[in-house]
Amino acid sequence: MSFPESTQLLLKAKKEKGLTFADIGILLGLDEVWVASLFYGQSTASDEEADKLLTTLGLGAELKEILTTPPVKGSLDPVIPTDPLIYRFYEIMQVYGMPMKDVIQEKFGDGIMSAIDFTINVDKVEDPKGDRVKVAMCGKFLPYKKW
Amino acid sequence: MSFPESTQLLLKAKKEKGLTFADIGILLGLDEVWVASLFYGQSTASDEEADKLLTTLGLGAELKEILTTPPVKGSLDPVIPTDPLIYRFYEIMQVYGMPMKDVIQEKFGDGIMSAIDFTINVDKVEDPKGDRVKVAMCGKFLPYKKW
Amino acid sequence: MSFPESTQLLLKAKKEKGLTFADIGILLGLDEVWVASLFYGQSTASDEEADKLLTTLGLGAELKEILTTPPVKGSLDPVIPTDPLIYRFYEIMQVYGMPMKDVIQEKFGDGIMSAIDFTINVDKVEDPKGDRVKVAMCGKFLPYKKW
Amino acid sequence: MSFPESTQLLLKAKKEKGLTFADIGILLGLDEVWVASLFYGQSTASDEEADKLLTTLGLGAELKEILTTPPVKGSLDPVIPTDPLIYRFYEIMQVYGMPMKDVIQEKFGDGIMSAIDFTINVDKVEDPKGDRVKVAMCGKFLPYKKW
Amino acid sequence: MSFPESTQLLLKAKKEKGLTFADIGILLGLDEVWVASLFYGQSTASDEEADKLLTTLGLGAELKEILTTPPVKGSLDPVIPTDPLIYRFYEIMQVYGMPMKDVIQEKFGDGIMSAIDFTINVDKVEDPKGDRVKVAMCGKFLPYKKW
Amino acid sequence: MSFPESTQLLLKAKKEKGLTFADIGILLGLDEVWVASLFYGQSTASDEEADKLLTTLGLGAELKEILTTPPVKGSLDPVIPTDPLIYRFYEIMQVYGMPMKDVIQEKFGDGIMSAIDFTINVDKVEDPKGDRVKVAMCGKFLPYKKW
Amino acid sequence: MSFPESTQLLLKAKKEKGLTFADIGILLGLDEVWVASLFYGQSTASDEEADKLLTTLGLGAELKEILTTPPVKGSLDPVIPTDPLIYRFYEIMQVYGMPMKDVIQEKFGDGIMSAIDFTINVDKVEDPKGDRVKVAMCGKFLPYKKW
Amino acid sequence: MSFPESTQLLLKAKKEKGLTFADIGILLGLDEVWVASLFYGQSTASDEEADKLLTTLGLGAELKEILTTPPVKGSLDPVIPTDPLIYRFYEIMQVYGMPMKDVIQEKFGDGIMSAIDFTINVDKVEDPKGDRVKVAMCGKFLPYKKW
Amino acid sequence: MSFPESTQLLLKAKKEKGLTFADIGILLGLDEVWVASLFYGQSTASDEEADKLLTTLGLGAELKEILTTPPVKGSLDPVIPTDPLIYRFYEIMQVYGMPMKDVIQEKFGDGIMSAIDFTINVDKVEDPKGDRVKVAMCGKFLPYKKW
Amino acid sequence: MSFPESTQLLLKAKKEKGLTFADIGILLGLDEVWVASLFYGQSTASDEEADKLLTTLGLGAELKEILTTPPVKGSLDPVIPTDPLIYRFYEIMQVYGMPMKDVIQEKFGDGIMSAIDFTINVDKVEDPKGDRVKVAMCGKFLPYKKW
Repeated sequence: MSFPESTQLLLKAKKEKGLTFADIGILLGLDEVWVASLFYGQSTASDEEADKLLTTLGLGAELKEILTTPPVKGSLDPVIPTDPLIYRFYEIMQVYGMPMKDVIQEKFGDGIMSAIDFTINVDKVEDPKGDRVKVAMCGKFLPYKKW
Repeated sequence: MSFPESTQLLLKAKKEKGLTFADIGILLGLDEVWVASLFYGQSTASDEEADKLLTTLGLGAELKEILTTPPVKGSLDPVIPTDPLIYRFYEIMQVYGMPMKDVIQEKFGDGIMSAIDFTINVDKVEDPKGDRVKVAMCGKFLPYKKW
Repeated sequence: MSFPESTQLLLKAKKEKGLTFADIGILLGLDEVWVASLFYGQSTASDEEADKLLTTLGLGAELKEILTTPPVKGSLDPVIPTDPLIYRFYEIMQVYGMPMKDVIQEKFGDGIMSAIDFTINVDKVEDPKGDRVKVAMCGKFLPYKKW
Repeated sequence: MSFPESTQLLLKAKKEKGLTFADIGILLGLDEVWVASLFYGQSTASDEEADKLLTTLGLGAELKEILTTPPVKGSLDPVIPTDPLIYRFYEIMQVYGMPMKDVIQEKFGDGIMSAIDFTINVDKVEDPKGDRVKVAMCGKFLPYKKW
Repeated sequence: MSFPESTQLLLKAKKEKGLTFADIGILLGLDEVWVASLFYGQSTASDEEADKLLTTLGLGAELKEILTTPPVKGSLDPVIPTDPLIYRFYEIMQVYGMPMKDVIQEKFGDGIMSAIDFTINVDKVEDPKGDRVKVAMCGKFLPYKKW
Repeated sequence: MSFPESTQLLLKAKKEKGLTFADIGILLGLDEVWVASLFYGQSTASDEEADKLLTTLGLGAELKEILTTPPVKGSLDPVIPTDPLIYRFYEIMQVYGMPMKDVIQEKFGDGIMSAIDFTINVDKVEDPKGDRVKVAMCGKFLPYKKW
Repeated sequence: MSFPESTQLLLKAKKEKGLTFADIGILLGLDEVWVASLFYGQSTASDEEADKLLTTLGLGAELKEILTTPPVKGSLDPVIPTDPLIYRFYEIMQVYGMPMKDVIQEKFGDGIMSAIDFTINVDKVEDPKGDRVKVAMCGKFLPYKKW
Repeated sequence: MSFPESTQLLLKAKKEKGLTFADIGILLGLDEVWVASLFYGQSTASDEEADKLLTTLGLGAELKEILTTPPVKGSLDPVIPTDPLIYRFYEIMQVYGMPMKDVIQEKFGDGIMSAIDFTINVDKVEDPKGDRVKVAMCGKFLPYKKW
Repeated sequence: MSFPESTQLLLKAKKEKGLTFADIGILLGLDEVWVASLFYGQSTASDEEADKLLTTLGLGAELKEILTTPPVKGSLDPVIPTDPLIYRFYEIMQVYGMPMKDVIQEKFGDGIMSAIDFTINVDKVEDPKGDRVKVAMCGKFLPYKKW
Repeated sequence: MSFPESTQLLLKAKKEKGLTFADIGILLGLDEVWVASLFYGQSTASDEEADKLLTTLGLGAELKEILTTPPVKGSLDPVIPTDPLIYRFYEIMQVYGMPMKDVIQEKFGDGIMSAIDFTINVDKVEDPKGDRVKVAMCGKFLPYKKW
């Protein structure tokens, strides 16, 4: 899998500055996952956010246009992802997808969780038996319209 | 997509008894998503859990063997799911998969979130602008071993 | 491509009664495309709508549960549809997908047209050089959330 | 997904001139979606249209040949599109494809809507509960010939 | 590859009556390929044509509805056909597809040959070095519309 | 879809000379579709044909080796073609493939139409209701051998 | 992979009679591989061959029609075969396909080996270091036609 | 399909020297198909074979490392080959794969023909009705081990 | 994924008898994985082994033919397995496949590990930090033959 | 299949130094397969390991960042590998996957073998009838969590 040149420039500058996504998130007043999604060309920044980010990373204004234009989204190359970390989320859907669908529809009726009006957070839960990754997704429920 | 006969019998009995997955979860002392995953042949019950479930649903003991045997998992038929509710989770990975990978590895180092030593919960967050679905996933972090 | 038994029963009864989807739509106070989507197991009826439909078609109550339960959606069998009428819509996206994306984002910013809070209508436009099919889709614009 | 160099040059010049597809459409006497499809190498301009467009955008005549030659069409890279905006149209066919087919054939008999003798328009419908995207497709009905 | 029951009944009756598709074509005043496409559920007969066909084959009226309803078309099972006779036509497109596209567009401009307003005929050309199969396809040229 | 450099050079030279494939075909004493297939690297020229062609187009001898070496054939990139003109031929096989197979075998017995000992011609049939494209394919019948 | 009922009946009868394909081949005056291909619905028998075969196997005349009708060929279910014996031949093409193509074209010019006017034989070559399987394929060379 | 640079250099030098694979095979004391497989990066030469080959072709020692290192094998690009010559072998397996499997196992028991301890030869069989291609494959039989 | 009836009968009888694969392995003098592969129709038993197995499980002789006939192998339904336990082995190849290939060829030269003359054993390694699964594969090295 | 530039540089330097993976493994105190997985961009080195490796191979520090950053894993290009050595492991899962799953679950209950907390070793087992490759995999057993 290869990423666009802008992604590579942003990641390199971040590494050289010794910043984490969380550091940059605090600076921009945004969550670290959203910041990372901007680095990977999956989100659109406002002019002000783009300026702040580029100044922080010591990068020139030539990346601004890319950061502020709605991108073609969907960054995973193979149809079924092969990276083990990402595949696990695909597997979760294979195993728990139908159960989740039923539970969501039992609570909300026929509709879906929006993936657009949507946030996602990642936290570390310390645990003596081994730390745990906590991923919290939260999206607006959209009921099917009748007409 | 068609489900095994046992899934259909369990869902039908649950509907006739007017029970939700949450109701059954309280009875078994287990989460509602896990209970639903048992209905869909994606989890294994203990003998005691299977007995309680079948009694509650008024079903015969002939389903016990299926409920207590480790199943072949992975219930989604097309390689890329077409049901809109389930597809949204696939899309989330397309859009936020690489960003999440980077954030998780920034916090934990090289490794993955387990999809086995793992829990998933679904909650309704009431919101005047439209209720929201909250999905919380929590899995043990597994660092890559060197040898 | 084969359809569920319920779809076949509904279509057969409709044919025997000599009703069009438009006729049934008027009866239920709903659009003809939505009615057809209910026949194909892609929508969920209310109790009242299901009762009215089954009475109209002279069908028994045993179909009511299917009509009122949120279905697993996505009815096209091959990954890329082979029926010429349906394939044309896939081709339209191949040819006009990116142009539409750009025009929509020029007008609305980064986001999508909802396929859930969404309606679709089909009309016949008479034309001396050959009648035309008019398909009007209308979905809520959902802007990407930042967090 | 990467686009041909000509597409990139056209989009860049348009951005620098601060023009929308609608602006250019008025200039050429053509719809904005069609103009965008020309930018993406999916349509063929006449000599006059190509000249006008290149002059407007301040681009040299070397793009004229590309703009006036029938292209190899079909610009979406993965078999099933992963960009959320474009995927929604694929999903609409998964969910409403068969219902539309039945309604069209109930109104017209056996045949298809042409994707060649065809127009597509995008409009913004203002709505206090959130603006809506309206997509109107209109294609000639082509009945199957018998011979 | 398995065919619908109606196809099997029609083929069996035809065999028992000792009729060729050409014989039936003469009876119905239609081409033999079209008749065969009706047998395979790819075309729609008029009421009169269906009656004549069923009488000729000594079959009951219960097949009439299937013969007169617009079918879901596209009868080849694997995405790329494996039957050698049918595969050869797929190969012809692999080898001569782009050349044909260029020649057609050189003669007609940007557009396509319709596969709907379209006929296809098969003839035997006797040849001392081995008989030849002649397939003649003829479809209306559809120029791309601008709007 | 991208074509080899030799194809691009040949097409460019042909355009600059203002020649059609038919013009070149007359010069070489070969059909225009065959000539186009040579341009797309799907056929092999004799030394003499290659010389004549390169002289006509004002191209150097460095393309001669490519034109006279049996190529790796099959020029369509996606498994199922997305260009509408080419897709229509794929669709014709989906719809009329089995009917053609039956008619051919009714006339010839078990065997296939050769795609190697094979010719293909494209003609324009003028028609007041809209001109028609006529494609005539003619291949040797090859009966299956028993042994 | 499942085979048609006729294949299963033929294989079962052959087993009960204790016959090898070679035994039956001698009886019919045909090669054992061809006989096996008839069992798997990949070849067409003459009336006389079908009669002899059915008598030998003690089977009724109801299979005769299937044995004497040109079948839809291509019996391997997954696109890439998973049975190890059959996969090896697929692998041979992956590894030696291009080398064979070059050697064949060096000897014959541009063209192919026919898979229709074609025979295949399997022999056992005894060898003290382990017996060897010898597969001899022999097909007519078909040169590409120019036109 | 594109081949590695080393393949292209070897093929070009062979052409300039006017050598066939058979000529080179005699020089190296190896079969022509094996020689061609070395050209296509599918086999490994010994030091001595590589030296002799490079001297014969007048090529420098910089290709020696590539010729003597076990390669990543499998040179066909699309999953199902589209070149007609190579596809025919794929088709042979579709049609005669199961019959061959049965005949091999009737003669040898449960096991496979090795594709590693394996040879392949191509010969021209002159025939007044048209020359024939003879391909002889010979591989060690490997019985399944029990343990 | 569904298994053949014979597999289901064997598994059911084994469960009713309360036997493990290891128990049966001791009885037959064979490894437990091999025994399980026989249950899943992936291996061939001798007459004596089949008799002993059927007697042990209290099953009739009608399964003997299936147990003693070389099967069509390859039991995983989706091209990429979705069951998490089995997928992990696919992932191991994605991650460690090329490294293993290099190490094997460094030790053995150009060739492969046989999957036919091959054994596989599964052991439990007790470990206070959590038990470990040990899978030992052992196959004959097959060097590529030159000819 | 092409590998990243860093992989090529590492492999080339190793070859020039005349080192095996085992040699380097001893130097770093790590197994040879793990070392090879680092070369192929599938593992992450510590700072110290990267320094030692680069000094040993005489390579500059510019590769250090790549060696110490968690990579996007999964290096096999085609969905089903075509290299014969690697394919055999895929085949082993096709044939012995379900049997292994059953044996593992008989010994451990419902869960999987971790592919993360996991080691793999390759050994040569000398054998007069032909040396054997021994691959030992050992991963932590992860039982499914209930919640």
